[in-house]
Amino acid sequence: MADMSEPAAPIGTRIIRSFHAHLYFRTTEERERAMTLRDQIGERFVVQLGRVHFVPVGPHSAPMYQVAFARNVFDTLVPWLMLNRDGLPVLVHPNTGKSLDDHVINALWLGDPLPIRRQVLTNDDDAGSSPIEPNTKPVVSSA
Amino acid sequence: MADMSEPAAPIGTRIIRSFHAHLYFRTTEERERAMTLRDQIGERFVVQLGRVHFVPVGPHSAPMYQVAFARNVFDTLVPWLMLNRDGLPVLVHPNTGKSLDDHVINALWLGDPLPIRRQVLTNDDDAGSSPIEPNTKPVVSSA
Repeated sequence: MADMSEPAAPIGTRIIRSFHAHLYFRTTEERERAMTLRDQIGERFVVQLGRVHFVPVGPHSAPMYQVAFARNVFDTLVPWLMLNRDGLPVLVHPNTGKSLDDHVINALWLGDPLPIRRQVLTNDDDAGSSPIEPNTKPVVSSA
Repeated sequence: MADMSEPAAPIGTRIIRSFHAHLYFRTTEERERAMTLRDQIGERFVVQLGRVHFVPVGPHSAPMYQVAFARNVFDTLVPWLMLNRDGLPVLVHPNTGKSLDDHVINALWLGDPLPIRRQVLTNDDDAGSSPIEPNTKPVVSSA
């Protein structure tokens, strides 16, 4: 029998299919910064820019837009957001097929974390499993 | 004259020399998990594992250890920590030569952000500029 006091084996990152970043804005001024940032992201990264939600939707407690991206974009986009998010709170979460865990446990935050409405999430759905369909054509280096 | 209402140009990521992760523990139980995690990181990633601080040091408000790593480790280590931090708060910050900004503005958090003692940080020092000297020999894939 396995010794139940042994720590669980680490989870391999291959379960991550893609990532989502959510860029939040809470005021008119933040909204303007968020829109500037959205253009700058589109000019620099191969991502799927989602439409802008001016009211909170789903698990999100503030207006935001989503940036969906493939695993190989993580190491350029996330450091760039660290330097350029301009005071906006940003949630970055993996998509492993478990929406609740991905938004609440597996997530990282740049800036102040905002509340997540967990009651609309489950681990049984397959949200976030759609392949990324980039809609940007970068023209500027992010380095 | 430049139009001062124009947004500032984005900052290129080339100013990032390296990254630090700080893994915090606040209880005996968290300390045990942190030690397990430290071994697991050393088995999987080429990083510089720092010594364990059992009392808060510098800008850190809880016991922790540091994991210093090169830019090219970001996209394997950070997603792995997202899945495996086991409830511990983790600070990841770039090293750009501005310690205060790097810990407070440019940082990201996995789990609950902890207070940072900003009064011991400045943007004038050159902390974090030392080259990474890995002291691990990975034997396991993180994927």
